[in-house]
Amino acid sequence: MSLEIIFLGTSAGVPTTKRSTSSVAVLRKGELFLFDCGEGTQRQMMFAGVGFSRETYIFITHLHGDHTLGLPGLIQTMDMVGRAKPLRIFGPPGIRGFIEFTVRSVGAKPSYGLQISETSTPGSILEAKEYIVRTALAEHGSFALAYALEEKQRPGRFYPEKARALGVPEGFLWGRLQRGHNVRLKDGKIVKPEEVLGPPRRGLKIVYSGDTRPSEAIIELSKEADLLIHDGTFEGSLSEKAREEGHSTALEAAEVALKAGVKRLVLTHISARYEDTKPLLEEARKIFPNSSIAEDFLRLRLKYED
Amino acid sequence: MSLEIIFLGTSAGVPTTKRSTSSVAVLRKGELFLFDCGEGTQRQMMFAGVGFSRETYIFITHLHGDHTLGLPGLIQTMDMVGRAKPLRIFGPPGIRGFIEFTVRSVGAKPSYGLQISETSTPGSILEAKEYIVRTALAEHGSFALAYALEEKQRPGRFYPEKARALGVPEGFLWGRLQRGHNVRLKDGKIVKPEEVLGPPRRGLKIVYSGDTRPSEAIIELSKEADLLIHDGTFEGSLSEKAREEGHSTALEAAEVALKAGVKRLVLTHISARYEDTKPLLEEARKIFPNSSIAEDFLRLRLKYED
Repeated sequence: MSLEIIFLGTSAGVPTTKRSTSSVAVLRKGELFLFDCGEGTQRQMMFAGVGFSRETYIFITHLHGDHTLGLPGLIQTMDMVGRAKPLRIFGPPGIRGFIEFTVRSVGAKPSYGLQISETSTPGSILEAKEYIVRTALAEHGSFALAYALEEKQRPGRFYPEKARALGVPEGFLWGRLQRGHNVRLKDGKIVKPEEVLGPPRRGLKIVYSGDTRPSEAIIELSKEADLLIHDGTFEGSLSEKAREEGHSTALEAAEVALKAGVKRLVLTHISARYEDTKPLLEEARKIFPNSSIAEDFLRLRLKYED
Repeated sequence: MSLEIIFLGTSAGVPTTKRSTSSVAVLRKGELFLFDCGEGTQRQMMFAGVGFSRETYIFITHLHGDHTLGLPGLIQTMDMVGRAKPLRIFGPPGIRGFIEFTVRSVGAKPSYGLQISETSTPGSILEAKEYIVRTALAEHGSFALAYALEEKQRPGRFYPEKARALGVPEGFLWGRLQRGHNVRLKDGKIVKPEEVLGPPRRGLKIVYSGDTRPSEAIIELSKEADLLIHDGTFEGSLSEKAREEGHSTALEAAEVALKAGVKRLVLTHISARYEDTKPLLEEARKIFPNSSIAEDFLRLRLKYED
């Protein structure tokens, strides 16, 4: 099992020939988690081979156009290619009105279900058997959310020798124990999972900051994440501009990563002024060595280490 | 002088990796005429090197998303790159509300002037010294317009031998006569342009049908156009589907071109089902030999023949 992350759009407000506006796709066991949906996201999904029919959750950080303008076209295309599953969209207050107005006014009438949830207070917004999605408030001038996709604890490591010693025959019963169920042996004895498993293991965790100043809430949200995808619009010498516009410098993003103790940092929302992103990268790596700069169609795979 | 036409998006409702949604740019003496503005048009303009600062007129045929969803992002980007000139947008009733809502809700506040004109009856909508833009009603189910960009008559051919015979010295005065002004010679004699020019010559004419069934109004609008860009969504065998969805087959578009006596036909709004467009092309050419199929970034140049 692993999580695959595909950067679909990595520009700041103005796209370039190399960078489309913001969107990051995360694939997990066939499900698609889309963070932001700037103009052109549907075509970026086509180029990346992501597909329109999966179980899909879209998380919008804030209402600025470079994070939202791909929604109506994507919603329309999903309908035209025959999507049947409902589409769930989460975002800040106002996202429902934006979607309902635009979808109606461009003549789209999706026949699949469209479930839109507005979030005005930070916390858990989606919980499934194996993962949870939480938000924190970002600091961007206008109302903005950061998102964490966090897998729940997985069962501990399975020790075959312990199972054998307890008389559990190899096969079906081992699998049940590994998945956390009690099993009953032929002699009537009950074996519990904790007798054959190590301590529960942590799952993977990804945080997407959206557009933001460095923020204590996002540091808290990002604690020990395997991957932090953070606003890195400018280099340190433009820190005044970053402050004014509600963005972070590469240096500030690296400090967030360091404080949160994440494993890896990827900077995105890169200003169009940086055709060469080396200055951003060098600056970030001085503070946080495991940093990199997103580019469109960059793919990362996160795997369990234990 | 010439007109340059750049196809920025040539797909039907659903884009593909090869085709972006509808938009055609026409460049004339530094001015930009943009017909439709589907999602992604701003980036297509970047790839084509069209630029965001020109005198620009945008003409929207109808409110479906694949013709409009590039507007808010383009308007926002033009502002972010410092556009100063006002932007004029023409379209059907509802286009103003669509633009005002989307631009406001995505947080854009263009500092250049945005002049939006809604057109509910066909006729002339824009007249400049050298050209006129007219509309006709298309037949697409919902309200839709077709547009003609038509240059006015140009002065006739200049005959140097006639000018010399009348005693007009080569140089500045020849230029004035060519541009249609009387000139006074040193001996006080007046020479009129018609004494040295042939009959007025026609200008160039381009028609963009937008999404439509074959229509008498569009045939009338297209009379003797140098270029007709027409809906050619389907091949003839899907004529029932074309009728139901308010589109044209390649065959029907070719018949329109033939009846209107245009010089050249380019089919666009190509259904995603045609990875190979040969069937459409062959069908159109049987009826109207000078047909071709648009593709993204196809460039045509129309020149005066006389």
